[in-house]
Amino acid sequence: MIGKYTEELLRENQENFIVPAENVATLLYSHPLEHALLILSKVGYAKIPVLDTEDRLVGLIGLSDIVNKMMGLTGFDYRLLEGLTVADVMEVNVPTVLHKEDLEDILHLLVDGSFLPVVDEDNIFEGIITRKEVLKSVNHLVHELERRYTIEPKSVPLKNK
Amino acid sequence: MIGKYTEELLRENQENFIVPAENVATLLYSHPLEHALLILSKVGYAKIPVLDTEDRLVGLIGLSDIVNKMMGLTGFDYRLLEGLTVADVMEVNVPTVLHKEDLEDILHLLVDGSFLPVVDEDNIFEGIITRKEVLKSVNHLVHELERRYTIEPKSVPLKNK
Repeated sequence: MIGKYTEELLRENQENFIVPAENVATLLYSHPLEHALLILSKVGYAKIPVLDTEDRLVGLIGLSDIVNKMMGLTGFDYRLLEGLTVADVMEVNVPTVLHKEDLEDILHLLVDGSFLPVVDEDNIFEGIITRKEVLKSVNHLVHELERRYTIEPKSVPLKNK
Repeated sequence: MIGKYTEELLRENQENFIVPAENVATLLYSHPLEHALLILSKVGYAKIPVLDTEDRLVGLIGLSDIVNKMMGLTGFDYRLLEGLTVADVMEVNVPTVLHKEDLEDILHLLVDGSFLPVVDEDNIFEGIITRKEVLKSVNHLVHELERRYTIEPKSVPLKNK
């Protein structure tokens, strides 16, 4: 469990935790892989979310998923992407969080993924929580903690004041 | 400044902070881009360090750096990589840290990069510090802090005990 004061400090940057959907590059599952390659090579992110036509999250796709599909017996061949769509290579069953998710769960899930997709109860994509934003909050936490609070080890008896 | 108790807790996972050089995929600056593409599509990391023949760090290279070089006027063409080496597309002047670097600097630099190369005084590559490992320490910190310590706001008078 995260303590009260620790959580309070972490949450002071909370409004910036979520990068809203309109600011996140996404792909449709039905997009041709040639298009996906173009988008992914331009956005500067290793992976981006994949949506259906109702804006529901259906997976993630990364540049390496597509480059691997281009690998033929005699080297890389762009033509191997012909006829394939995002749905053919995307990663499915990705961890997601709800908008009001526990900070504890978010911090644990971000150990294994560079970002976490945020969805609503109907799996509609709302945005992402990135390690970058969470690390900004961590910087805030570790700098403010002992400036604002007095900390005493619990096992050591309190000195006379 | 990071307070004493906060830093102590963060450093309890310190031996795992650095992924040592022998466990990090790297490329030589003189490697052909075709080879770099193959390595990068396999390692599962968006970017990896580039070394010279003396194991000095000279840059970073990512899959998107290479894919962008394959983009011709009429689509992607693998043959556009012919004759090019890692040195032609790698990112140079990347932030690095020394082995004994301040935790404060490390936490700040990781806001803008998913990992930090660690070098010695002669710029010999020693390994990387990843957001993943640092986030493990952050999880440890936020869970242990109020379990081990009593925290009191400094502006509020201490209650009678």
